[in-house]
Amino acid sequence: MSDQLLDQICEIVRQAGSIVLSASADKEIKAKEGAANYVTKYDSKVQKYLVAELTRLLPEATFVGEEDGFSSHKISSGYTFIIDPIDGTTNFICEFMCSGICVGLAIHGTMEIGVVYNPFRDELFCARRGQGSYLNGSPLHVHNRPLNEGVVNIDIAPYNPELRERAFAVSTAISYHSMDIRDIGSAALGICYVACNRCVAYISHLLSTWDYAAASLILTEAGGVFTDLQGHALPLKAKTSLLASTETGLQQTLDLIHPVLFPN
Amino acid sequence: MSDQLLDQICEIVRQAGSIVLSASADKEIKAKEGAANYVTKYDSKVQKYLVAELTRLLPEATFVGEEDGFSSHKISSGYTFIIDPIDGTTNFICEFMCSGICVGLAIHGTMEIGVVYNPFRDELFCARRGQGSYLNGSPLHVHNRPLNEGVVNIDIAPYNPELRERAFAVSTAISYHSMDIRDIGSAALGICYVACNRCVAYISHLLSTWDYAAASLILTEAGGVFTDLQGHALPLKAKTSLLASTETGLQQTLDLIHPVLFPN
Repeated sequence: MSDQLLDQICEIVRQAGSIVLSASADKEIKAKEGAANYVTKYDSKVQKYLVAELTRLLPEATFVGEEDGFSSHKISSGYTFIIDPIDGTTNFICEFMCSGICVGLAIHGTMEIGVVYNPFRDELFCARRGQGSYLNGSPLHVHNRPLNEGVVNIDIAPYNPELRERAFAVSTAISYHSMDIRDIGSAALGICYVACNRCVAYISHLLSTWDYAAASLILTEAGGVFTDLQGHALPLKAKTSLLASTETGLQQTLDLIHPVLFPN
Repeated sequence: MSDQLLDQICEIVRQAGSIVLSASADKEIKAKEGAANYVTKYDSKVQKYLVAELTRLLPEATFVGEEDGFSSHKISSGYTFIIDPIDGTTNFICEFMCSGICVGLAIHGTMEIGVVYNPFRDELFCARRGQGSYLNGSPLHVHNRPLNEGVVNIDIAPYNPELRERAFAVSTAISYHSMDIRDIGSAALGICYVACNRCVAYISHLLSTWDYAAASLILTEAGGVFTDLQGHALPLKAKTSLLASTETGLQQTLDLIHPVLFPN
């Protein structure tokens, strides 16, 4: 791994951003599995661009992405790019200005590089394992603090209405112990917002690997921590819940949500 | 009223934005009434700047603002500036990049000019009665559409924990009929986000005049509508609930939340 490789990946992701910014009103929106889950022609277009450019960079790498599905075999051996062309597709459709292009690079199953870019705000988050994380070139350091010194971003599991009541019960419990609740509609950016201290925690009830792989390295390299909602360490998994926070906020959140998630 | 007056107010608000952007880490945060309700030295600093500059512009105007309290007498006669120096103070404290400087001008109780500026994203929303509304100079037109064609921004009443359960019950009900829920943490920007179609609706359980006065004109001039949560027309009131949406979304939201707010 080298800084040069990180820089090259950042440059590819920035270029992909210009495809996202060039999107016309006609996004050719198609429904996917679950409720209110969509894909647009730009998800495919950006994914194609990323695969072509990243293959040129590392021809031996395999890919795991939203369009290809998940294979743990692929992730546990060799070079694997884990990509989400547009995290926050609903935001993209709504022109909400808050979507992330995500590229993670794992080697033998360990995250080595993570890049998340919101082209609408020109904010590029990146990290290399052991080398810290950055927002537009400025180093990120998570301030360890409790929930009541920040706002908590909670994803209400829009694609899974069966998780909804539980998601709002968690939001209610957390709301009494934090400054306020936020929901920006992008998992990757939600995790990055913890890395840059805009939020003290991020909570999601169900994510796919490509939603959190790149962002999770940005978080940990900034000094943040993450587990699933039961407090278990989180390897790269096909589907999982996720809690990202400061060290203090993580334990506090687990204590607060345990009685909500496991009432007996 | 003239375009020139609107331009002059916009320029003053932009200048106030540079005070907000210059804020140091030490914001001298003080607690206010209610839970998690704060004011910083920059709220006072921006308010002082706005009052001085706007008085120079219209010496006969009176002021209604967060620091001065509310007087309906003041609003019903003559020129009244209704100002909120930093709407979204919690976001400002957390460096969440989403706060609005709000200046509204009412004449004999009718909103004539509204300006809301988010200096962190350099987005200036403005409107003059009968002359349309604009985001950074581009005209805004609300697309009339139902809830399931957009995301709904819902404020969970952070300062009023006694409204919390009701706020989440409303969020739950709305979540099944919209693309997703958002919470950006600024009432004024939440209403402006409906005006520019980023959200299909904005819901708040308790606002003060200065939170919505300027933004409500930006909304209606863009073709959006607003009422309180019971569907009543909303004059400038000291405290109120508020629903902003498209024409279709407004009626749909009222129908959905009525059984939640009035269960018997």
